[in-house]
Amino acid sequence: MTIDVLVRNNVKVLGSGSQTIVFAHGFGCDQDMWRYIVPNFMDNYRVVLFDYVGSGQSQIDYYDAYKYSSLQGYAQDVLEIMKALDLRDAIFVGHSVSSMIGMLASIQSSNYFRHIVMLGPSPRYVNDLPSYYGGFDRRDIDELLEMMQMNFIGWSSYLAPIVMQNSERKELTDELEKSFCSRDPHIARQFAEVTFLSDCREELEQASVPTLILQCSDDSIAPVEVGEYLHAHLKNSRLQQMTAKGHYPHLSQPEETSRFIKDYLQSV
Amino acid sequence: MTIDVLVRNNVKVLGSGSQTIVFAHGFGCDQDMWRYIVPNFMDNYRVVLFDYVGSGQSQIDYYDAYKYSSLQGYAQDVLEIMKALDLRDAIFVGHSVSSMIGMLASIQSSNYFRHIVMLGPSPRYVNDLPSYYGGFDRRDIDELLEMMQMNFIGWSSYLAPIVMQNSERKELTDELEKSFCSRDPHIARQFAEVTFLSDCREELEQASVPTLILQCSDDSIAPVEVGEYLHAHLKNSRLQQMTAKGHYPHLSQPEETSRFIKDYLQSV
Repeated sequence: MTIDVLVRNNVKVLGSGSQTIVFAHGFGCDQDMWRYIVPNFMDNYRVVLFDYVGSGQSQIDYYDAYKYSSLQGYAQDVLEIMKALDLRDAIFVGHSVSSMIGMLASIQSSNYFRHIVMLGPSPRYVNDLPSYYGGFDRRDIDELLEMMQMNFIGWSSYLAPIVMQNSERKELTDELEKSFCSRDPHIARQFAEVTFLSDCREELEQASVPTLILQCSDDSIAPVEVGEYLHAHLKNSRLQQMTAKGHYPHLSQPEETSRFIKDYLQSV
Repeated sequence: MTIDVLVRNNVKVLGSGSQTIVFAHGFGCDQDMWRYIVPNFMDNYRVVLFDYVGSGQSQIDYYDAYKYSSLQGYAQDVLEIMKALDLRDAIFVGHSVSSMIGMLASIQSSNYFRHIVMLGPSPRYVNDLPSYYGGFDRRDIDELLEMMQMNFIGWSSYLAPIVMQNSERKELTDELEKSFCSRDPHIARQFAEVTFLSDCREELEQASVPTLILQCSDDSIAPVEVGEYLHAHLKNSRLQQMTAKGHYPHLSQPEETSRFIKDYLQSV
C-alpha cells in the first residue's frame, strides 16, 4: 500500500513564487497557528503547511506509537512531504520542537533545505548541570506528564497561560488551551514526552544548513541560555533576540516574527 | 459562506445500488466502527458513511458548542448531508444516540427516510421512576461527566470494558477505549452530556418512519426495558432481540447485526 503523504499530513500549498517556504507547527498546535504569518509570505513564496500525524486534521489512523517514539519519526515525515512535493532548497520554518525536527531532517537530506528558521528552539529542555541549562528539572517534566495522564483538561488550562505569557490578551491563552485539548490525549501525552525528553545536542554539530535562531523574551520553554547554547553549537547560525514574549510569537507578535524571517532571508 | 457539508462531516459514499443506506455512528465513535458491516451491504446498496462534527475526521473547526448543545444540532447535520447527496427514501441505520438523532431528523423531513434501524437505542438514559426505567440514576451520569472532566484518560479506560462487554475479547475493549480517547476531551464531554441527559420520549409519537429496534443483550447503556418501551411508543416499529452482548454489536457480532438488518429490509 502506498501512503498518500499529502493526505496523511493534511498538506496545503498556497501562494506562488519560485522559492518554497515550509512552516512546521510545534507540540499541541497545528498548521492554523501560522495564519497570521502566512499572508506576509504568500505574495513572494510558495507556502507549504502541514499537520504532524496526530495533530490538527492529519489522518490519525497513521499514528504509530513506535514510529513517533522519537523525533526521528516526525523528521521522516517531513522528508516524505518534501519528497512528495519534489522540493529542493526550501526554507524550513519550525516552531519549538519543529526546529529540531527540521534540523534532524536536514542532517539526513540536506539537499531539501536552503535555510532553516528556528522559532523558540531548544536542543534539550531538561537541565544537564553544570554543563547545560535547559530550564527544566527532570522532575518538572515528569510532573507535567503525570498531570497530562491524570487530568488532561486541567493540564491544558494550567500550562497554556504559563507558556503563552501575554496575560493581558486572554484570547491568546484561550486559543492555546483549546489547541492543547484539540486532539487525542494519549497521542498528545506521547508527543509531549518525546518533545520534553528529547536531547539533540549531539546532532547539532552534524547540521550544516544556514540557520536563524529566533529567541523569544520571557520564554518559559526555551530560555535565553538555550538560544545562546544553540548559536554556539550550530554552524552557520545567526541568533536574533525578539521583543515578543512567551513561546508563541507567531500568534502574539506576528509582525515582528514575519519581519525577522524576511530580514534574514533577504540578507543571506 | 457556503458550508461544504460533505467535507465538514467527512462523508464517504461507497458501493452501488439504487437504494441508499446511511450508517450513523454513536458517541465516542466514528464511521470506522461500521467497517465489519459495510462489506455486507456494498454489493446491493449505495452506502453513506459520515462523522459527526467533533468526531473522527470531521472538520473540528465547525464545532459549535451552542448548536451541539442538543441532539437537534446533530439531526440538522444529518438532514444537510442527506440534502447534499440528494437522498430520498434512504435507509438510516443509527447506533446508540444516532438512533434518536435519526428519528428527530425524520420527524423534521420524513421524505428522506424509508426505514430506520436503531441499534441499541434509548429515548432517555436517566430513570424517571416509577413510570420510566432508563438504567441510570441522574447521579451516575453526573459522576461519569465529572470523571470525564477530571480524568479523561481514566474515564475512557473505566467505561470501555463496561459498555463493550465481551471481556474475553480484549481487542474490542482496547479499540473502544482508544476511540473514546481519540478526540477533543471538551467536545467529547459535551457530546456525552447531550447524549446521556437527552429525553426524546415526547418525540416518539411524532415519528412515523417504519423502524427496526435491535435490542442487544447485557447492554448496560440500553437495557431490555428501554427497547420494550421504545417498541410500545414507536408506531410501525419492530423489536428484535439480539444474542450479541454489550452496546457495540456491530463490532462484536457484525454477522448477526448485518443479518437482522438484511432480514428486516427484505421483509418490509
